Amino acid sequence: MSKKIIGVLEGDFIGPEIMQEAVKILKKAAALYNHAVEIVPLEASGTAYDRYGCHLPPSTLALAGQCHALLKGPFGGPPEELHHPKWSGVEQGAILPLRKHFRLYANLRETKVWEPLMHLSPVKERIVRNVDVLIVRELTSGIYFGEKKERMLNNERVFADTEAYSESEIRRIAIKAFELASKRKRKVTLVAKSNVLKSSVLWREVVNQVAASYPGIENDYMHVDHAAMQLIMNPRQFDVILTSNLFGDILSDEASVLQGSIGLFPSASLGDSAFGLYEPIHGSAPSIAGRNIANPISAILCIALMFNHTFHCVTEAARIERAVRRTLESGFRTRDIFTGEDDPRLLLGTSEMGDRIAGML
Amino acid sequence: MSKKIIGVLEGDFIGPEIMQEAVKILKKAAALYNHAVEIVPLEASGTAYDRYGCHLPPSTLALAGQCHALLKGPFGGPPEELHHPKWSGVEQGAILPLRKHFRLYANLRETKVWEPLMHLSPVKERIVRNVDVLIVRELTSGIYFGEKKERMLNNERVFADTEAYSESEIRRIAIKAFELASKRKRKVTLVAKSNVLKSSVLWREVVNQVAASYPGIENDYMHVDHAAMQLIMNPRQFDVILTSNLFGDILSDEASVLQGSIGLFPSASLGDSAFGLYEPIHGSAPSIAGRNIANPISAILCIALMFNHTFHCVTEAARIERAVRRTLESGFRTRDIFTGEDDPRLLLGTSEMGDRIAGML
Ligand SMILES: CC(C)[C@H](C(=O)O)[C@@H](O)C(=O)O
Ligand SMILES: CC(C)[C@H](C(=O)O)[C@@H](O)C(=O)O
Repeated sequence: MSKKIIGVLEGDFIGPEIMQEAVKILKKAAALYNHAVEIVPLEASGTAYDRYGCHLPPSTLALAGQCHALLKGPFGGPPEELHHPKWSGVEQGAILPLRKHFRLYANLRETKVWEPLMHLSPVKERIVRNVDVLIVRELTSGIYFGEKKERMLNNERVFADTEAYSESEIRRIAIKAFELASKRKRKVTLVAKSNVLKSSVLWREVVNQVAASYPGIENDYMHVDHAAMQLIMNPRQFDVILTSNLFGDILSDEASVLQGSIGLFPSASLGDSAFGLYEPIHGSAPSIAGRNIANPISAILCIALMFNHTFHCVTEAARIERAVRRTLESGFRTRDIFTGEDDPRLLLGTSEMGDRIAGML
Repeated sequence: MSKKIIGVLEGDFIGPEIMQEAVKILKKAAALYNHAVEIVPLEASGTAYDRYGCHLPPSTLALAGQCHALLKGPFGGPPEELHHPKWSGVEQGAILPLRKHFRLYANLRETKVWEPLMHLSPVKERIVRNVDVLIVRELTSGIYFGEKKERMLNNERVFADTEAYSESEIRRIAIKAFELASKRKRKVTLVAKSNVLKSSVLWREVVNQVAASYPGIENDYMHVDHAAMQLIMNPRQFDVILTSNLFGDILSDEASVLQGSIGLFPSASLGDSAFGLYEPIHGSAPSIAGRNIANPISAILCIALMFNHTFHCVTEAARIERAVRRTLESGFRTRDIFTGEDDPRLLLGTSEMGDRIAGML
């Protein structure tokens, strides 16, 4: 790859602020390792709506298709304006179509507990220490994309959604999960609800078939209700959790609690090629936007994931992760991870945190 | 009501042991307050399968219909025998039909953190202290009972489940939730996923209509992924959580974590009349069965719920709860809630714990 082309969808509210820091780290890492990079700004969500009346203009999709990777900020508006058309259609109009258009069926969300921030966790230290769980969430099928129905029955409305999965949809993501586990602690836990859902029965069957090709990897199963409990009671038992779109949505947000701040977690959405979409798992936080106080770490860690999964540059990725860890170990904090015990002189704004991490690279 | 008739479905493994203690408390409380009670043993699950080849014989349903309330132990077999027909059909053959047959559409699961056991929680004390969340879960509709499909498409299998809700199904349980909230902290939080699911849009609409008749009660909304996070980050913000069958299954198990032991929580399943089914939320724990070590508290608290919701005897219910609290405050423990800091002389077996609580009544 001669030049790495990265499309940037800034997102709303704190989006532009944190994306700027991610791009700062991207450029610095590229310079250190002699990568040529080109940044392509792409319009979507709020700003696109203001200009084009839609959240994902065709021009954005066309340009995005020419990039090697996409870096995406959070999309969405403030709670009190959710019914405004500028915001109400953002999920159906931009977030889901982006995933579907690029066939990004595998969403990777890693919950790692950072030692210097362990005190922030609502969960006790003896439980969260050394947690490292990777949730592999199916992202382009299931009840998010299944048939939706609205009908009248006995003079009242019945609204319905369909959770549907085909064998191939399950197989391709199961393979991803087992491949990822082979580079980690070699355990995959399928989470589903096979005592109630027919689709879960198919998940179990296909995952068992796939597992047969990975004899060195433990193949475990857990019902989703039990998993929601075990994630907090004993998270170290998990390595890779493989699950559906809906269960992955719930469990990955739940798992992020273990660290105590949602401002730290990146995610990767991947398909069959190296192309990937990288984004923080948190929202656009309108209430703190424009004040240079948002935490850019989730966005910066997106760059590490991008080097890993799209560019296969593990050294660069590890170096970014290490720079983040050292910055935290040195006591630097943004407001969301600052407590009374921290040194107020080490409290940084968004861009200063980006500078610090860049300096540590 | 001249005589209170209570059907008892013992359940499997630890079921009979803990049900026996619940019946002990029921009889003691009845004697104290001059209630005539009749216990009707009802066959279901494992024992019924052995005798009749099915998990819920018609005779059980017929007899159960003549009771005022049902007390149910956990149904289900050991993990290694889940594919044995004795166990594999228990959910579809007994648990779900029981709920559906008696139209028990409202499942109440209360997570209260007991002060003397707070140290057991994986979550920090500053977060769990005084938690008291009531989850009102829809129990006879949604994806548990929606149409299931199996079809071939492009030469592969597609399995599907349907999440469907009608206005009246939502309305009746919303009314239950608001009524319950009116006797508590006057707040109802609907949990759904209205940015993705059509059925959730109907939930929001109908719940807003119902809320209009309860102007003194706060009507809040939260997406399910966010709720899974907030339940651990800040559980005291919740009073009553109103949600669908599937989300309620996940969130109620997650919430039970706050206390640190699942052996403490009862649940009530109610319909339009006073008839109710009362059961622990935990499973049948085959590995500890028959050794007089299971915790009977969840089963005993079922009796308190039964006095409350079926017999409308709040004094009796409060007295049972108080007896449990005092027993715990006095330091008595079963093995699941015993830690190194507890007095080994106060470690009790299942039936001794029942005796202690009976003595405290
Ligand atoms: C915004 C919403 C559609 C989205 C989802 O549910 O997938 C979000 O919660 C996420 O997890 O990325
Ligand atoms: C056993 C199973 C069908 C059941 C459910 O999912 O409802 C259980 O998990 C529960 O919560 O009571």
